[in-house]
Amino acid sequence: MNITNDNVFEKIVAGDLPCFKVYEDASVLAFLDINPVSRGHTVVIPKRKSATLADLPEADAAAIGAALPRIMRAVLGATGTADANLLQNNGAAAGQVVRHVHFHIIPKHADGSGLPFEWPKRTLDMTSGAELAKRIQSHL
Amino acid sequence: MNITNDNVFEKIVAGDLPCFKVYEDASVLAFLDINPVSRGHTVVIPKRKSATLADLPEADAAAIGAALPRIMRAVLGATGTADANLLQNNGAAAGQVVRHVHFHIIPKHADGSGLPFEWPKRTLDMTSGAELAKRIQSHL
Repeated sequence: MNITNDNVFEKIVAGDLPCFKVYEDASVLAFLDINPVSRGHTVVIPKRKSATLADLPEADAAAIGAALPRIMRAVLGATGTADANLLQNNGAAAGQVVRHVHFHIIPKHADGSGLPFEWPKRTLDMTSGAELAKRIQSHL
Repeated sequence: MNITNDNVFEKIVAGDLPCFKVYEDASVLAFLDINPVSRGHTVVIPKRKSATLADLPEADAAAIGAALPRIMRAVLGATGTADANLLQNNGAAAGQVVRHVHFHIIPKHADGSGLPFEWPKRTLDMTSGAELAKRIQSHL
């Protein structure tokens, strides 16, 4: 069995690798992250592989979207936590390690464990903002 | 007009506040973040207010999920970027400022601008992991 970062989730979906499963439906699987950032850190994936969110077929994206609130509630309920981050990385520069689209649910606990991040706030320039919004619209 | 962090997105949905809109459908609105972390930083929200992802009705969650890949492709295409993070914060401790559930699409540009984060990897304990997965399942 040849396992690389790129197919580890496919192996889990196929049952060739074990996982601590927390949720499953026809097209979605959720399991505990093997390298948790905090207690309850859960990974949610489409069973059918897409590399990134941009590649994810609309039906799979809708199925994951629909499942996320329920899984989030269960993770928060089970860990006794009210706050959490959802993080989904696309591309190596953005921190993606496994090229199978996945959503991290990361509880933020009272002890501070969870996703730490800096939020470098800038202010949107109104002129370039208008131009940029139009440019994005044109790509839809 | 009384605008607080808690209703700024409702005002935008109602048209009482302007935004640089990039996408809209029956239940989803996307617009440029006014304090962009990087160029193309876009916020995706349900038109109908829910405070957090855990509160989001399944239909709204499915609609946002379905729209995310398309909006992501447009943001990446318009900004000439391949990599990006999707981040969604729930609760003040997790960085949520506006209590209207929202998803940040944050391009990661070649100049390094984008979401910076530390990823404190730990290793899942197999015994407590099995117990935790069962506990989450029981909350589904």
